[in-house]
Amino acid sequence: MRLAIDAMGGDHAPEEIVRGAIKAVSEIDNLHITLYGDKAKINQYLSANENIDVVHTTEVITSDDEPVRAVRKKKDASLVVMAKAVKQNQADACISAGNTGALMSAGLFVIGRIPGIERPALSPTLPTLDGKGFLLLDVGANVDAKPSHLLQYAIMGSVYAQKVRGIAEPKIGLLNVGTEDGKGNDLTKRAFSLMKEAPINFVGNVEARDLLSGVADVVVTDGFSGNVALKTIEGTAESMFSMLKQVFMGSFKTKLAAGVMKKDLTELKNQLDYSEYGGAGLFGLGAPVIKAHGSSNSRAIFNAIKQACHMVEFNVTDTIKETIEAMEIDKEDNV
Amino acid sequence: MRLAIDAMGGDHAPEEIVRGAIKAVSEIDNLHITLYGDKAKINQYLSANENIDVVHTTEVITSDDEPVRAVRKKKDASLVVMAKAVKQNQADACISAGNTGALMSAGLFVIGRIPGIERPALSPTLPTLDGKGFLLLDVGANVDAKPSHLLQYAIMGSVYAQKVRGIAEPKIGLLNVGTEDGKGNDLTKRAFSLMKEAPINFVGNVEARDLLSGVADVVVTDGFSGNVALKTIEGTAESMFSMLKQVFMGSFKTKLAAGVMKKDLTELKNQLDYSEYGGAGLFGLGAPVIKAHGSSNSRAIFNAIKQACHMVEFNVTDTIKETIEAMEIDKEDNV
Repeated sequence: MRLAIDAMGGDHAPEEIVRGAIKAVSEIDNLHITLYGDKAKINQYLSANENIDVVHTTEVITSDDEPVRAVRKKKDASLVVMAKAVKQNQADACISAGNTGALMSAGLFVIGRIPGIERPALSPTLPTLDGKGFLLLDVGANVDAKPSHLLQYAIMGSVYAQKVRGIAEPKIGLLNVGTEDGKGNDLTKRAFSLMKEAPINFVGNVEARDLLSGVADVVVTDGFSGNVALKTIEGTAESMFSMLKQVFMGSFKTKLAAGVMKKDLTELKNQLDYSEYGGAGLFGLGAPVIKAHGSSNSRAIFNAIKQACHMVEFNVTDTIKETIEAMEIDKEDNV
Repeated sequence: MRLAIDAMGGDHAPEEIVRGAIKAVSEIDNLHITLYGDKAKINQYLSANENIDVVHTTEVITSDDEPVRAVRKKKDASLVVMAKAVKQNQADACISAGNTGALMSAGLFVIGRIPGIERPALSPTLPTLDGKGFLLLDVGANVDAKPSHLLQYAIMGSVYAQKVRGIAEPKIGLLNVGTEDGKGNDLTKRAFSLMKEAPINFVGNVEARDLLSGVADVVVTDGFSGNVALKTIEGTAESMFSMLKQVFMGSFKTKLAAGVMKKDLTELKNQLDYSEYGGAGLFGLGAPVIKAHGSSNSRAIFNAIKQACHMVEFNVTDTIKETIEAMEIDKEDNV
């Protein structure tokens, strides 16, 4: 297994990226990692390691860079050179904690789509109360989605949940404004019809209220609504923690109680930390591309590496390709 | 002030509706309420009151009824007769805690829109960390919105925030996938251009992550995304409370801590209870129509009544009408 990793992306790069890579090669067999970035900076945290090598790059795409332009202009950026390595088959998959838009652009324009896939989807796994988590896609790769895009997201999500998360018949839901059949806007009504006929375990419409209760293993939506759902979960959880903190700091009495509960509350916070499930997959590209969270520490990077390894090992990309091809053939047979 | 109230709508009807009405007429001057519903059931909770009368109706629209059909077929339903009273100018405004879709249908087909308003918007006020709250619209009256609809939501929200919430220059934000100008899908990009030219204090794009921090007084979005945002806030808060409960019930030690914190945690829950801000306004109709939450208790009904009174008192409907008319004239002048 050969992974390419952008060592310069994310709030804690390159230190946490390098540490995550070191941990990964020590724990995962037959793993070779190539880090892309400023060699001098990377080597501050890296001692000689036969399973890690470094490719020096001179440019960095920052979070302020306009994604498409940055990928086009900064030809020696760590993120771009990493994507090229995948395209040239020097690596099986890649990971970056940097600029999300730039990673999507590099994925699309450098690595390219799986034949037959109309649009890639950005797909994080989010926490649920039972600890199993659910895959939400798309959360913003494509903000003007068509029904056929949503159908393909469902297929890709289903393959991922089966192969990587080991769920035999993953429940696929369509995010909607009500659970009844026939609910929704024009997009979801048409996507519903397509998904009903698809080779997946489609459980129908699901509501945003039930996402964290684990109503489905995979929840399909357009990139705009998915982005709203994802950021609303993040914002609401953050706001509640900040309100809780105020409550705990309110008086001597509550401060004492907070002391007693500290460990349990940290665990609660960890339970909501979705970096435990790895990064967000950018599904539909010619190879696994993982977007790790911008604030990733070494543990989150390690989880993203494990996830990329699973995607390679279980042939997620090829399975998506074959499923889409089979559906195309079915469609032609029916004409 | 004459209010019409559906006494049969909601999980705790008619008892909590009647109790809310009794409280309101005792505290608000010059208020007369007509309750619509099963007279015998209502009178179980109502003793003679010169400011409340009851109109007997024989049918009820339930939460399982298909809204449009129910409003058409159940001509003697409490909700429908209530809406007719407003149409016939027997009441200045109306309130129901019943079937949301049915109330929207009755509003649209019985009461009718303000001339010039293309689509009404369902508009709850949601909690923020600073306790001020923000208005989110639309959360589902219209799931296939056009840019011009979003512009009108912005105008209606701005008028409401000024008149009822007493904010001199309410900050109006557009819910989007990023805060930078030019972000978004086709709908939000086009709505952004319209809102920039409108007679409102437009603060640009806002992200779902920042809703509860009070990033804007009014957040404008299409009914699909608004519904997703609203239900995600509800679901995330509920899930976190249920996780907290598990933490507190985990051991003897944490149970003790929970006992100490009980009052503060109840306050935290109340802080997130948006019935404190009244019900969701159905803006853009010929008279104020308020959707109280289905689980409303008498306090929530009382708050919805206060809200309806403010909307009547401060001429929200007329102000919306005049603002829309003035914009139409401006548009013609510019042609």
